[in-house]
Amino acid sequence: MEQTQSNNTYLEHLRHSAAHLLAAAVLDLYPETKNTIGPVIENGFYYDFDFKEPIKEEDLKEVEKRMSQLLSNWIEFTHKEISPEEAKKIFAHNPYKLELIDEFVKEGKTLSLYESGGFIDLCKGGHVEHPSEELKAFKLLSIAGAYWRGNEKNKMLTRIYGTAFPTQDELDNYLQKLTEIEKRDHKKLGRELDLFTFSETVGKGLPLWTEKGATIRRILERFITDEEIKRGYKHVITPDIASLELYKKSGHYPYYKESMYAPIQIEDEEYMLRPMTCPHHFELYLSKPHSYKELPIRYAELAKLYRYEKSGELMGLLRVRAFTLADAHIIARPDQAKAEIGGALELIEYLASVFHLKAGGDYYYRLSLGDRNDEKKYYKDDKAWNEAENILRDVLKSRSVPFVEANGEAAFYGPKIDIQMKNIHGKEDTAFTVQYDFVMPKRFHLNYINEAGREEEAIVVHRSSIGAIERLIAFLIEHFSGAFPLWLSPIQVEIVPVSDKSNKYAEVINIKLREKDIRADADLRNEKMQGKIRDAQLMKIPYMAIVGGREEENNTVSIRTREGKDLGAVPLNKFIDQLQTEIESKN
Amino acid sequence: MEQTQSNNTYLEHLRHSAAHLLAAAVLDLYPETKNTIGPVIENGFYYDFDFKEPIKEEDLKEVEKRMSQLLSNWIEFTHKEISPEEAKKIFAHNPYKLELIDEFVKEGKTLSLYESGGFIDLCKGGHVEHPSEELKAFKLLSIAGAYWRGNEKNKMLTRIYGTAFPTQDELDNYLQKLTEIEKRDHKKLGRELDLFTFSETVGKGLPLWTEKGATIRRILERFITDEEIKRGYKHVITPDIASLELYKKSGHYPYYKESMYAPIQIEDEEYMLRPMTCPHHFELYLSKPHSYKELPIRYAELAKLYRYEKSGELMGLLRVRAFTLADAHIIARPDQAKAEIGGALELIEYLASVFHLKAGGDYYYRLSLGDRNDEKKYYKDDKAWNEAENILRDVLKSRSVPFVEANGEAAFYGPKIDIQMKNIHGKEDTAFTVQYDFVMPKRFHLNYINEAGREEEAIVVHRSSIGAIERLIAFLIEHFSGAFPLWLSPIQVEIVPVSDKSNKYAEVINIKLREKDIRADADLRNEKMQGKIRDAQLMKIPYMAIVGGREEENNTVSIRTREGKDLGAVPLNKFIDQLQTEIESKN
Repeated sequence: MEQTQSNNTYLEHLRHSAAHLLAAAVLDLYPETKNTIGPVIENGFYYDFDFKEPIKEEDLKEVEKRMSQLLSNWIEFTHKEISPEEAKKIFAHNPYKLELIDEFVKEGKTLSLYESGGFIDLCKGGHVEHPSEELKAFKLLSIAGAYWRGNEKNKMLTRIYGTAFPTQDELDNYLQKLTEIEKRDHKKLGRELDLFTFSETVGKGLPLWTEKGATIRRILERFITDEEIKRGYKHVITPDIASLELYKKSGHYPYYKESMYAPIQIEDEEYMLRPMTCPHHFELYLSKPHSYKELPIRYAELAKLYRYEKSGELMGLLRVRAFTLADAHIIARPDQAKAEIGGALELIEYLASVFHLKAGGDYYYRLSLGDRNDEKKYYKDDKAWNEAENILRDVLKSRSVPFVEANGEAAFYGPKIDIQMKNIHGKEDTAFTVQYDFVMPKRFHLNYINEAGREEEAIVVHRSSIGAIERLIAFLIEHFSGAFPLWLSPIQVEIVPVSDKSNKYAEVINIKLREKDIRADADLRNEKMQGKIRDAQLMKIPYMAIVGGREEENNTVSIRTREGKDLGAVPLNKFIDQLQTEIESKN
Repeated sequence: MEQTQSNNTYLEHLRHSAAHLLAAAVLDLYPETKNTIGPVIENGFYYDFDFKEPIKEEDLKEVEKRMSQLLSNWIEFTHKEISPEEAKKIFAHNPYKLELIDEFVKEGKTLSLYESGGFIDLCKGGHVEHPSEELKAFKLLSIAGAYWRGNEKNKMLTRIYGTAFPTQDELDNYLQKLTEIEKRDHKKLGRELDLFTFSETVGKGLPLWTEKGATIRRILERFITDEEIKRGYKHVITPDIASLELYKKSGHYPYYKESMYAPIQIEDEEYMLRPMTCPHHFELYLSKPHSYKELPIRYAELAKLYRYEKSGELMGLLRVRAFTLADAHIIARPDQAKAEIGGALELIEYLASVFHLKAGGDYYYRLSLGDRNDEKKYYKDDKAWNEAENILRDVLKSRSVPFVEANGEAAFYGPKIDIQMKNIHGKEDTAFTVQYDFVMPKRFHLNYINEAGREEEAIVVHRSSIGAIERLIAFLIEHFSGAFPLWLSPIQVEIVPVSDKSNKYAEVINIKLREKDIRADADLRNEKMQGKIRDAQLMKIPYMAIVGGREEENNTVSIRTREGKDLGAVPLNKFIDQLQTEIESKN
């Protein structure tokens, strides 16, 4: 087993055995293939192969069939320890295994072989006892490219993913859940609902937002901006590129170098695509002197940021090369820290609730602490760390929210409160964060004049209210399966004339709705009404307003919902009122 | 004279004579200085010097005094032609003049000297006959750095600007106008009104927008976006960086190479800060097939663009290294071209009117044509050029707007209509533009399926509705001298309590106004009311709401305008109504 033991050891043994069986079937079908490694992962397993000719997803059916055929001979696993020389003889034609053998020897590990059904693999063990009886329910899921040992300088291998369960029922349940998740996948829905696209010529990891996707972004960005302004944030705009000197001044450069893109030469200076907003806001603060009376100053910005992502790690809107962060930096007196951190959490909780995220369910709080012994990763100032961590802990306690503490997860300039979220695939990530910073004020001399007329050092709270807009939208697409609440729907009402005789009336209704700032569209194509209704439902448009002679006579519209509910004829004004109330409610 | 003759020859002779006098005074006061060249420019003259020790603006008084003292001996200019050898002897200690002499000789020019009051300069002539009588009204204005021959690889010289007029009255008038213009200067007002700032550490030519400046931007951007959407534009969002391949595909690269920043290496590709939006929108169009029924498709974007500007050419918000263009690309059938170009002009005229710009006065139309003989600059297709130019000409004629035609001012891919504007300094520039493009559709295969089910090539209209947001704001600051109309004012109402007893009521009014989306601020500083009113006026806040005991009793506010007009006590609700009406009117 190439993974650590867990509570679910049996499931892991089962899946690891299936990985062996997969490798056996592949080598049987494609004898020139070199097999490499095949670990268990969450929900399944994979095995990486170096195929002579690339295989396709369609070929997996054949591999699965061969696995079943071979299985009857897999009575048990036998095991033997061998010398490096023996191992090298056995795997003489497989350079990957030879590399592993050399490495294990160097690490002083014992080499062992496991065999079943005539198939031998270099392996540490961890199998079921009777594979032919126990491997009743397995499934190959997909193939993907993967560099040998995850290093892009190595050869690209073919990874085959699969899973296995003790019973067919459990497998079926899992596969159904997977289908559900796939239906909700934001990349798939983004394409189907025409929200965003990618272009190889523009470049990888750089989404192009269509009219509909850009509409969702615009609504979200305006909502967040307006809400922050209401709460006393100063929304500012700072450049997306800056001189390398700025990040050297902030001290980010050595820590973030790996995640920054290469510099751009302009005259005799080097400019960088910015990986973070903080030093930009600090320079704004420094553009004039500040009195204690002005503090706290809360600079907020929808800041475009650039982080280095390998092309292999890009993923829809979740891992992109440029993203827009709802970022803010609160420059405050030390005695204002608690109130400001509390205020930031309040805003986050409010926004999370608007987006249907529940504390405890969808997200939880993590207090991420520094490691006093890791001076390379963390700024050395034990007293400041203790104070700052206590402040954050106090705020969390005073808000009576449950939280976990995680050592060594802080930023280099101070501790933070992370809002941790799981996506539909079960992957946990830090969605939003509130950070306490006692280092940047020193580096940038972020001072203010106190009541006595003397300079004093401010503290900084970094916070993202709703994280990256791209990630938020990916989350919302998956959360709502693309059926956005009315206020976020790119098209809110599709007007469907009963026949082309009603096209004019449909246009009149369209104009009237648009005058009331409702995103309406009239479907005047030369198609049947039923087809138009079906198309609107597929596009997950919340309401269809069906209009014919009767509706025109009575100045009404007949309302259908995307779920297929018939709400009957409603006077136009009443419909507009209902829409506006629902939009206002953000539900 | 180093400039071409104009109608105003006498004024030029006068100013050129003053430039001689300036050089004489400088050499008299600072004998180790090397004088270089001193041409006449619009509204005055300058002379570039290589000083041994740098001088300051304060020193100009002394130079002016010396000019007056020397002037009495400047009875007339005498003139003589000389050989290169003689000239080199005379200017043996001045490497700049030696360089010029060599150059003139190479060009086959005759060398001539002009002398007055004992001061000799290498000069082509163009002076007044009796300087001591005629140079009655001159003035030195400022100093600036300037590279020798405008080349940044050469030494930085000191340029002294001055002007001269036939009479003192004319000079006084001009200086007063200059003071007016300086007061309106957007860089100065931007600082005074706290709209934007620059940071050397962030980098040159990259404005940082404060809360107030960002507020103006936000209002403008939302207004333009919403107006364009109303007019059937699809607002999209595309990446600010793209693979170099994209600009090679579009063919922009060879034409725009000089104005693009150096590429950024990402894995094995080169990425560029985008200098234009068009290829991004084309890639969006190409993400799916299109029917003739869908056309025209109008992609619009507030697109961040990057153009290479030398640091010496940067100027406030007018010349920056990153700007946001209200850009759009209309992909249409050829038979839709006229209507689409007409629609673009209509939008431009509407927006211009909102921003108080008048056709004929503030701007005029220029039809910029291609040069059939310049195949290097223009795509070769005479028939397409003729057709496109006729379409643009027809549209202008049908709109009955006066326009001028300018040969050789087109884009490389087609002719365009430029909206030409002068700024307060009298400099003319292309503010907005509507371009007809028959080249990009070929390069990108921008096709659609026509009624017969066959592929046909679309045409593209490039247009900017209001140009760059940065430039628009620079214009608005100068146009309104910072006293923005109510809808654009960062703070619309300053609430001023009569004394601190009324602070609470001021806060209540503040909250009520903000609830109605009015940008209000309450001045609760420990200052006198009169001082607060004066500060609000200096910040050009449209309305001050003065509140004291009487106002609180009657639920009113007493209104003062920034111009100092007292509008008396008004019930709060009525004031809010008035504000909303004025905001709505955009006046």
